[in-house]
Amino acid sequence: MALTVVGSIAFDSVRTPFGERDRMLGGSAVHFALAARFFTQVRIVGPVGDDFEEEHLELLHQRGVDTSDVERVDGGQTFFWQGHYEADMNLAHTDDTQLGVFADFDPKLSEASRNAEVLFLGNIQPDLQRRVRAQADGSRLAALDSMNLWIETTRDSLVAAIGDVDCLLFNDSEIRMLTEEPNLARAARAVMDMGPRIVVAKRGEYGAVLFTREGFFALPGFLLEDVRDPTGAGDSFAGGFLGYLDMQGTADPGPDALRRAMAYGTVLASFNVEEFGTDRVAGVTEDEISERYEALRGMTHFEASS
Amino acid sequence: MALTVVGSIAFDSVRTPFGERDRMLGGSAVHFALAARFFTQVRIVGPVGDDFEEEHLELLHQRGVDTSDVERVDGGQTFFWQGHYEADMNLAHTDDTQLGVFADFDPKLSEASRNAEVLFLGNIQPDLQRRVRAQADGSRLAALDSMNLWIETTRDSLVAAIGDVDCLLFNDSEIRMLTEEPNLARAARAVMDMGPRIVVAKRGEYGAVLFTREGFFALPGFLLEDVRDPTGAGDSFAGGFLGYLDMQGTADPGPDALRRAMAYGTVLASFNVEEFGTDRVAGVTEDEISERYEALRGMTHFEASS
Repeated sequence: MALTVVGSIAFDSVRTPFGERDRMLGGSAVHFALAARFFTQVRIVGPVGDDFEEEHLELLHQRGVDTSDVERVDGGQTFFWQGHYEADMNLAHTDDTQLGVFADFDPKLSEASRNAEVLFLGNIQPDLQRRVRAQADGSRLAALDSMNLWIETTRDSLVAAIGDVDCLLFNDSEIRMLTEEPNLARAARAVMDMGPRIVVAKRGEYGAVLFTREGFFALPGFLLEDVRDPTGAGDSFAGGFLGYLDMQGTADPGPDALRRAMAYGTVLASFNVEEFGTDRVAGVTEDEISERYEALRGMTHFEASS
Repeated sequence: MALTVVGSIAFDSVRTPFGERDRMLGGSAVHFALAARFFTQVRIVGPVGDDFEEEHLELLHQRGVDTSDVERVDGGQTFFWQGHYEADMNLAHTDDTQLGVFADFDPKLSEASRNAEVLFLGNIQPDLQRRVRAQADGSRLAALDSMNLWIETTRDSLVAAIGDVDCLLFNDSEIRMLTEEPNLARAARAVMDMGPRIVVAKRGEYGAVLFTREGFFALPGFLLEDVRDPTGAGDSFAGGFLGYLDMQGTADPGPDALRRAMAYGTVLASFNVEEFGTDRVAGVTEDEISERYEALRGMTHFEASS
């Protein structure tokens, strides 16, 4: 039981109505790994520059994340994202992106990373995702995220990458954009026709929907009175979702396991947004996760009609 | 057990990506009544012009809706709304509104309408809502809807109207606008401080959230592959929600009844959007409602963690 994640390891500068932070630890692979570590052994793959502090690797390492495939590039700069949110925090406004060491990233997975049962391809250039997927031939369940940029600029590569995976986790608007189908249920079916048998539509504060050939399942987001920074919530969702599935030890999870995985994804995403960056998920406990899972059940359960 | 609804009885001209219809039967009170009639005796109050065909009253009457408080104004024109939807059907674009007989509407409720246990004040001018509320002194559970127009132009009247009711059903964006609080959970608490003990935030295709002093409950929208016209879905939701509560025969429904009411609201709203105007809800059967209620349970249920 092990999970490999490839994606950005980054510095994020973020401003929200609730504050501002400069060059925090962030990136899709980092948010994902910190969520998935509660369920399975996580190996993180990606490049950093020599501006990346040892303390950040240490933070991951101390929480059980295997960082031996993090590649430090001499003279390189770590991926940097700057953005802000207005009152509607469902929408991120990007102010700056500097690829840094990602511009020349040539992924080389160790044997341990190649053989992990579950693989998550975080949001990076689709050709990079395909090369990683080709190396990780030991994985039984491969999943992928992406973004509007790649749909607009490298659609053919992205469709090929999607054809290589079992599971896709996208924002709902991106599923519609990719398939040019405004109805989400029809759009999800169009994605399944590209290859994946599991499609998850992430809807920000509104929750998430799971589609398989057998049907669908939907959860609202966990309601919170304090939302400080939504950056990384989608990756924390993916970490909870895929981490739980890896813990089940099967390449073909049944409907009950998929539903519980959706609930764990929702729970981890809800912790993510409570504080800036990785602050909350880096410190959350297993007991808090179990409590919130039960609270989410309580928040959504209703009885048969009397 | 009876329910009085006051609101628009209208002609709607609607264009969506799936077709176009001219001067269909519509209006908040009509959509509400056609949904609520499955659960209780519904009395509809509102004015129509002499352009309003007898067949429309007959359609309501045949479905058990009491139309004796529908006032026909000689020489008047029935309320008219024209609008369209783009690919994102969560957003209605208004092209024309003609108040017609609503400009001089002076509500006079019959004794039967005044004594109904449940009262729904559909989206009309807040001072009109207050006058109706003052007349309906027999109601044990009064609820109210409104819209951004009244928040912007007659906020004080609207806040006074809200202070007179037990339950508020608004779009989530309108709850935020009314309270100037971007966080929905905090905004709902601010609404409760204005008077209502039950607050429902409607979120279009994303579902709805229920807030009480005891906590909250959230449901996603029912997923559909065919959504043709969302006009009136919020009123169908309110009809299913309040109709079910009236059927319980108590002024103070408990948490289980409120949750089931949320599910029935979701079910009736989902039928509403499947066809243009009132076509689907006017023809739906009790069996179809029960089936979809169970399907919604199946779509949202997940087990405790193993």
